[in-house]
Amino acid sequence: MLDTQPPGRRERKKLATRQALQDAALRLVADRGLEHVTVEDISEAADVATRTFFNYFSSKEEALLGDAPEKVATVHRLVADRPATESPLEAVHQVLRELALQQAQRREELLLRQRVIERHPGLLARQLGMYASFERALAAAVAKRPGVPADALYARVMSTAAVAAARAAVSSWMAEEGRRPLLAMIDAAFLHLCELGSPPPDPSNDPSNRTST
Amino acid sequence: MLDTQPPGRRERKKLATRQALQDAALRLVADRGLEHVTVEDISEAADVATRTFFNYFSSKEEALLGDAPEKVATVHRLVADRPATESPLEAVHQVLRELALQQAQRREELLLRQRVIERHPGLLARQLGMYASFERALAAAVAKRPGVPADALYARVMSTAAVAAARAAVSSWMAEEGRRPLLAMIDAAFLHLCELGSPPPDPSNDPSNRTST
Repeated sequence: MLDTQPPGRRERKKLATRQALQDAALRLVADRGLEHVTVEDISEAADVATRTFFNYFSSKEEALLGDAPEKVATVHRLVADRPATESPLEAVHQVLRELALQQAQRREELLLRQRVIERHPGLLARQLGMYASFERALAAAVAKRPGVPADALYARVMSTAAVAAARAAVSSWMAEEGRRPLLAMIDAAFLHLCELGSPPPDPSNDPSNRTST
Repeated sequence: MLDTQPPGRRERKKLATRQALQDAALRLVADRGLEHVTVEDISEAADVATRTFFNYFSSKEEALLGDAPEKVATVHRLVADRPATESPLEAVHQVLRELALQQAQRREELLLRQRVIERHPGLLARQLGMYASFERALAAAVAKRPGVPADALYARVMSTAAVAAARAAVSSWMAEEGRRPLLAMIDAAFLHLCELGSPPPDPSNDPSNRTST
């Protein structure tokens, strides 16, 4: 996802089909509720055969969860690929920033997906499980960064706290309806995270109030 | 719960009934599954009338979630009651430490409850909702501590990161099967949290490897 090479035509077509299936699943389930939508309905709405659906997702629930599963699969490589000169927290900050940037471009879709997920406990439970997998993958990646102590607690605290900071930024951004740019809020959240051990910052010096980024 | 006054006889009796209902609910659902246990079954196993059950819980699901709802209700007061000389993070650290201490005394029960909850998506979704309420209540309490900037992001980052650190400590403690004491791990997690902005600590200096506390 963060590859610098642009995807080839075949790859672009696959991404477009995947997105069409996700969009159709979200739209249909938002309209009718999960129990009244079948894989056949979703495939038809995206104009593909049902067996094509199963090349991308194993169930309608999976199609509804957005890109979370790929994020779990790629986070290890993303963290490993950050320059060795970056501190572990800085590397995690940059990776979560890139992942958030992809979300920022689809704010309406995100809001709708979250509403749909929260209406269905089964989906919410799956999402929770995915978040836990993401945090574990991130902690495993952090543990391999140069200079990180072997005690697993350090890597776990860093990764869960970093995800918490990113989540706080995203939910503040959504609550503010985009008044401040998402990336500025992510950066402000990580700055706050770095400063947790110090006295609270002077509010007049809050970088998220600047309009750059 | 953290009142220094010991509870009176009437209060003790209520707490005991409440605990008996929670124990019965957990035991029965662990044995039979949520759908095969009724409020009547739970009440009978705890030797109280069904209407007594409803003085304590509004549903069997609520009885299964443990003390999480009370924690949401009391966290605001607990944070407000910490001395004004403590930094916001230190106040949150002490409150989460006290709450964790109550859990540490019931490790087996906690493990069983978590297994039962994870087997039922509806319970997991409720638990997730409760965690979110707890974080919101904590953020609201942090925002009122002296010296905290008005930008809601600071209080949100601190409270979600603090809960994340406590959660990392509890799950490391469970994974280690109690090799290090829970409170030492909570303290180590908060120390790591304070140091996130600095280079990673020297592992030979890890306070959670000491056996005090």
